Amino acid sequence: MVIQKTLDVTTNGRDTIELTADVDNIVRASAVKQGLCNVFIQHTSASLILCENADPTVRLDLESFMRKTVVDGDPMYRHTTEGPDDMSAHIRSILTDTSLNIPVTNGRCALGTWQGIYLWEHRQQSHRRSIVVTVYGDN
Amino acid sequence: MVIQKTLDVTTNGRDTIELTADVDNIVRASAVKQGLCNVFIQHTSASLILCENADPTVRLDLESFMRKTVVDGDPMYRHTTEGPDDMSAHIRSILTDTSLNIPVTNGRCALGTWQGIYLWEHRQQSHRRSIVVTVYGDN
Amino acid sequence: MVIQKTLDVTTNGRDTIELTADVDNIVRASAVKQGLCNVFIQHTSASLILCENADPTVRLDLESFMRKTVVDGDPMYRHTTEGPDDMSAHIRSILTDTSLNIPVTNGRCALGTWQGIYLWEHRQQSHRRSIVVTVYGDN
Repeated sequence: MVIQKTLDVTTNGRDTIELTADVDNIVRASAVKQGLCNVFIQHTSASLILCENADPTVRLDLESFMRKTVVDGDPMYRHTTEGPDDMSAHIRSILTDTSLNIPVTNGRCALGTWQGIYLWEHRQQSHRRSIVVTVYGDN
Repeated sequence: MVIQKTLDVTTNGRDTIELTADVDNIVRASAVKQGLCNVFIQHTSASLILCENADPTVRLDLESFMRKTVVDGDPMYRHTTEGPDDMSAHIRSILTDTSLNIPVTNGRCALGTWQGIYLWEHRQQSHRRSIVVTVYGDN
Repeated sequence: MVIQKTLDVTTNGRDTIELTADVDNIVRASAVKQGLCNVFIQHTSASLILCENADPTVRLDLESFMRKTVVDGDPMYRHTTEGPDDMSAHIRSILTDTSLNIPVTNGRCALGTWQGIYLWEHRQQSHRRSIVVTVYGDN
């Protein structure tokens, strides 16, 4: 049993957007009771993370860490035609996740208490991002 | 066909713990012969890795790399209430894996010869960690 | 419904090799119309990435970033018997992906326009690498 839906999300530049409720709603609307849920972003300059969901400063600190580790406009980059944040966005995407794979138990995402699903936009401008959610398992 | 089990692991502070045999035992006890095994940790300050399993200094060197790259108590962190190792643990978790997805072939995890499954505790204190193992496929 | 095939790839030392067509051919040859495709590399010193597929300088810049971030022959490494690029290869593997999980829609990999599947060899010498592709879902 496989159910597949697409989430279209418009971002407001570099930031995180929580998707936990959107994904869990798709899982609940499917008849899958035990199985898995794959969340896949069809882009290479935005990514997905499972992150602590209680204190928003965690995601601000993550952003600070990434900004320091993956420098925008690093003079070593050759891929520069789309601006100083484009190559760094590709590297950030590689260091984080393009897909998340979450168990489904009793018809719900079996996340830990402090786990939330987030889209991380790595570009400075607003973008429209497509996320494919696939739920599969037994009903 | 979907089988789901939870492993509860008590860690002894920042270190790696091998889970290969525990996961493979769940795969063997299921009747799944060809499919996949998802290993998911329900936490954001401990993570999972597939790592070289022959020489323990590989995991010591990984720890040295992480300690240097993701600084405990970095003055830039705003999320500091749970101690100097908490925000760094969240970043380490994001840079490694919350879930592993391993093929099942002939009723066993189809790991390479030198691949082992490890839990990586990123906090300095002992924690109880829940890991959901989902095996699915054909029998 | 589960189909499993192995791709054997000989690398030419540290570099990326595109696997998109090989993986998509396995998906198309299976009768799976809606589901998922898992691509798994059975090694700990080579890895997989979903990367921008239009401009080859993106992958050159990724390599530059990794070479700077994960130093070959770093004097802190204790795991040195296999050469200065071995421990760094294990770290690069941990920071990137051992498996990719891609939705299958209408019998094809549902990749974004600019997403390609790449093997990233992290060792300086040529190696033979095994990649297990598992496709599952509804026909």
